[in-house]
Amino acid sequence: MAGVAESSEIATAVGSVSPQRLKVGDALALQDGNMLNGYELVYETYGTLNAAKSNAILVCHALSGHHHVAGEYADGSIGWWDNIVGPGRPLDTHRFFIVGVNNLGGCHGSTGPSSINPATGKEWGADFPIVTVEDWVESQARLADHFGIDAWAAVMGGSLGGMQALQWSLQLPERVRHALVIAASPKLSAENIAFNEVARQAILSDPDYVAGRRPERGLRLARMLGHITYLSDDQMADKFGRRLRHGEYRYGFDVEFEIESYLRHQGDKFASWFNADTYLRMTKALDYFDPARHHGGDLAAALRVARAKFFIAAFSTDWRFTPARSREMVNALVKNGQTVAYAEIDSPHGHDSFLIPDDYYHALVAAYLQRVTL
Amino acid sequence: MAGVAESSEIATAVGSVSPQRLKVGDALALQDGNMLNGYELVYETYGTLNAAKSNAILVCHALSGHHHVAGEYADGSIGWWDNIVGPGRPLDTHRFFIVGVNNLGGCHGSTGPSSINPATGKEWGADFPIVTVEDWVESQARLADHFGIDAWAAVMGGSLGGMQALQWSLQLPERVRHALVIAASPKLSAENIAFNEVARQAILSDPDYVAGRRPERGLRLARMLGHITYLSDDQMADKFGRRLRHGEYRYGFDVEFEIESYLRHQGDKFASWFNADTYLRMTKALDYFDPARHHGGDLAAALRVARAKFFIAAFSTDWRFTPARSREMVNALVKNGQTVAYAEIDSPHGHDSFLIPDDYYHALVAAYLQRVTL
Repeated sequence: MAGVAESSEIATAVGSVSPQRLKVGDALALQDGNMLNGYELVYETYGTLNAAKSNAILVCHALSGHHHVAGEYADGSIGWWDNIVGPGRPLDTHRFFIVGVNNLGGCHGSTGPSSINPATGKEWGADFPIVTVEDWVESQARLADHFGIDAWAAVMGGSLGGMQALQWSLQLPERVRHALVIAASPKLSAENIAFNEVARQAILSDPDYVAGRRPERGLRLARMLGHITYLSDDQMADKFGRRLRHGEYRYGFDVEFEIESYLRHQGDKFASWFNADTYLRMTKALDYFDPARHHGGDLAAALRVARAKFFIAAFSTDWRFTPARSREMVNALVKNGQTVAYAEIDSPHGHDSFLIPDDYYHALVAAYLQRVTL
Repeated sequence: MAGVAESSEIATAVGSVSPQRLKVGDALALQDGNMLNGYELVYETYGTLNAAKSNAILVCHALSGHHHVAGEYADGSIGWWDNIVGPGRPLDTHRFFIVGVNNLGGCHGSTGPSSINPATGKEWGADFPIVTVEDWVESQARLADHFGIDAWAAVMGGSLGGMQALQWSLQLPERVRHALVIAASPKLSAENIAFNEVARQAILSDPDYVAGRRPERGLRLARMLGHITYLSDDQMADKFGRRLRHGEYRYGFDVEFEIESYLRHQGDKFASWFNADTYLRMTKALDYFDPARHHGGDLAAALRVARAKFFIAAFSTDWRFTPARSREMVNALVKNGQTVAYAEIDSPHGHDSFLIPDDYYHALVAAYLQRVTL
């Protein structure tokens, strides 16, 4: 799912929440050379900011995620990482002030392709700039400023969210005390980029997209493909195997196998609401992320600037960002003599493991955060 | 590539060849319930059939392959498995009579979606029946009959071609003495089916396909996705890594990384010539293949009927059909006390390894075939 939980397996502990909105007047110079003359960020908070403003945790979202991290809306929708946030949960709202924010370029309320371009008075659409992980860190810093938070107790995220946590530690090293980088990678591999490129081409070549309409076919294909990479082969085998929809072969192109039904359903659901221009930009942000690039490919050299302590976790069946990718970060930090805790967690759930409650995984996060001084 | 080599690394040893055509008058009752009232098979042969007709090897093709296995056409196109066929090569034409055939439902000359449906006088197109591995074996048997071959010395293939070799040994056990099953699987996993389903949906949802036109967009996406699964992560990393087309980020949706250029090129090339209705059917044949299905999932029980000796080979970096999938077949045969030679070959080339010349791999095939009595 990489960012959007479909339903919480545990009832929300946070209770009712509602989003808030920050209007940033400062211009933002983006990595792609464009300038945003002000923008809005939609965010949510859980728990209470202490007087010293030393207990704030920023939770960054992945590809299709958003600011609704925890708690419940009036319409019943529960945050995508609700299972890890709340009183007594690993991100303990008795102790911490948790902030979720929708990334710039997103489609959940922050300035993005579906916002009005002040220069034209029309929706940005495909004209919205490309945004990068660096841009997100810069914009999220305005949210910290808004609260008067000099330094986050922690910045945390899974997948693309983990990349943001890492980038925070490099870009604004004095403003993050702990970085929790989960199911992430210091850069995408050629295969990772290849999957993103097929998803993008599905959207970009959809005649509806070319004609300026909603490319539901392309979004559907992109999501179907994405889902394959979020799950593990083993998990798919356990969950679906070769189970037939009708108990026997029908010899046609309607659903034969349950896995086909699952993918079509996921694709249809996603295509009905997600913004294609956001999807395109999120995949590009992933592709471009590569902090070692400015250091001749030397990751240790790139990470040396960090002042944060690190918690890095990877999942055994994650083949999108394998544990080996997390170990690259761990080894670079160890090489530098920086402080890092690393956990390789057995889980059958592939890349999606970071979203799924698991006692051992949650106990590790809880134990790490309990040691964070306020 | 799974069936179509782009260029031979070694000059053809077979020399000039040309395809031939067999008209089959007998009706064929297909697994999907349809009846084909006669059909044509296009095929090629290399070497000479001996007087005893005991030296014939049938080479079965994979997803996008065809009958042009070896040798060179007048237009310069070289067979897709030319590197393994010829005088002194593993499939030694001094000793063996090699037959390549385009599968029923294909798009290279055998009866398929682009053939004329005698009932309507128009192209079959999407009305062409679904064909299965069982149907192919049945139709290929007519080719053996044509040559007066009671039993193939060997039936051999990689990927979907390997599944045909296996099915031959089960369906017509007295007519195949050796089955060489390479880079194959006794059935597709949920993940395998999932990838096929995304490829099919790319084609089926292409508005051109719906309108009865050539769905070049869908075929392009299907092929791009296919290519990711034919290569290994390591090989992609070695061959492309994060190498940029322009040496720097351009922040747009044109090609940034070389891997994107490669995939687009492969997709465009394939979309310009391959028949979408054939592609759809080849993926369904893969999905449906599951000989254990009639034996309550017991593969050993399914394989017990075979009289052939087996050579099974898998490649270390093949993540489409991992060595574990080949070992399922080996273990079932061993359990039955049947004769099987198994090789797990170190290769960086992923699923495509079966097409790529490698001294150790070719030496194993050569050694196995040298022991085949004529």
